[in-house]
Amino acid sequence: MKEKLFIIKIGGNVIDVEEALKTFLEHFSSISERKLLVHGGGKIASQVGIKLGIAPNYHEGRRITDNETIDLVTMVYGLINKKIVSQLNALGSLSVGMTGSDANSIIAHKRPITKGIDYGWVGDIDEVKSDFFNSLLANGITPVLAPLTCDKEGHILNTNADTIASEVAQALSDSFETHLIYCFEKPGVLKEVEDENSVMDRIDGTLFKQMCESGAINTGMIPKLTNSFNALQKGVNEVVIGHSQNVLSLTKNDFKQCTRINL
Amino acid sequence: MKEKLFIIKIGGNVIDVEEALKTFLEHFSSISERKLLVHGGGKIASQVGIKLGIAPNYHEGRRITDNETIDLVTMVYGLINKKIVSQLNALGSLSVGMTGSDANSIIAHKRPITKGIDYGWVGDIDEVKSDFFNSLLANGITPVLAPLTCDKEGHILNTNADTIASEVAQALSDSFETHLIYCFEKPGVLKEVEDENSVMDRIDGTLFKQMCESGAINTGMIPKLTNSFNALQKGVNEVVIGHSQNVLSLTKNDFKQCTRINL
Repeated sequence: MKEKLFIIKIGGNVIDVEEALKTFLEHFSSISERKLLVHGGGKIASQVGIKLGIAPNYHEGRRITDNETIDLVTMVYGLINKKIVSQLNALGSLSVGMTGSDANSIIAHKRPITKGIDYGWVGDIDEVKSDFFNSLLANGITPVLAPLTCDKEGHILNTNADTIASEVAQALSDSFETHLIYCFEKPGVLKEVEDENSVMDRIDGTLFKQMCESGAINTGMIPKLTNSFNALQKGVNEVVIGHSQNVLSLTKNDFKQCTRINL
Repeated sequence: MKEKLFIIKIGGNVIDVEEALKTFLEHFSSISERKLLVHGGGKIASQVGIKLGIAPNYHEGRRITDNETIDLVTMVYGLINKKIVSQLNALGSLSVGMTGSDANSIIAHKRPITKGIDYGWVGDIDEVKSDFFNSLLANGITPVLAPLTCDKEGHILNTNADTIASEVAQALSDSFETHLIYCFEKPGVLKEVEDENSVMDRIDGTLFKQMCESGAINTGMIPKLTNSFNALQKGVNEVVIGHSQNVLSLTKNDFKQCTRINL
């Protein structure tokens, strides 16, 4: 029987609030099974960027990553990553911070110019090499992964953290019983985006298709759900979307509020 | 017989010049024996700091690391670290970037207030734990180490890169035949600081003491030499100081220009 592994992703809203991050990390560190954390960047990158004179540049919700911006996000992710690692170690969860560049563990390619838009140093993943992750986990170490990958020429690439979590979970499914948990600032996928009591317990592929067609879904949720279905189709055992404050209960079977994704 | 391991430290002057760093990394990656790289920060931290409104604050040549400055150097070291790692991987030297926080590998304590001076988040090393370094090296991976450590409460601490290189070399001497190489922008320790042809071939403890007493030594070299003698006294097999461009020849016995340190 394969050992259980939780792949947990936290978004910017947890990272931006020191107290929320501290509480999350306390709960995360008390998960007794093997675990891996993927973090996003939060608003810190934009804040530091403004001070450095690097204006945020978005096209349809996606950041354009020029030369200055890839250096900026690499710096800011580095800071967030080491703060998380240091706190986890102090809490007794032995952790190692990393990016997809380290040990060449996530190989990507620069996104080609699409419909005249050059997204810059943005990477689409080609391959997750599981060796280094497996070696850390076998030594009882929790990998803490910042959302950067690299191409074969040594360029660092900015890569969506939800996609990284999904792809890493898929790659580790050969060795582990993998559970992918997307944590964010809501208790789950909401039927009515303004109503926190409208959490959808389950979403399956048919329902997701209906919701996309009818427009009854927050567009920001579509990539997260697409990543969730990709994960389930490629060997991940379970995908759950819930509030970062509930991370501990999301790893148990006794949780109440969250959205489970089914094929 | 123990396997050979080169612990190589590069300073800011190599990091600040893109071409010099590229050439150095090409030479470094062609070292066929096991190796570990420690890098400093260069001028980038001060440059980014000025843009962010964080003025460099030095006391007797040592940076005072306040709350803003520790975040700044953690960001900048993160960027330098990932650039080096990505380039080494593209050159075929499988590398992992890390700090002393990762896997709690270098435990330090915040320097106590000394003669009324609070150096801030500056760490003095208590212990290097060799497990994680050994595990990387056993898997054929080159550790690339940024000069940060952590205390037991999860604070990140700014720590002298020369000292880190010396302490890591000492800790790994149980498992390896260790060779510590300090690379910088000069061909070795110079007898006349302005004359690059005045490289001292060898410095031993007696000569070092004489030089310190007579003042015939650049004060900037004293910590590097002290770290060198500490390393030799605690099990490191060889210490060499030379130019970063000569790194490959410094790992062979055929090099001409450099300073060898003897007890």
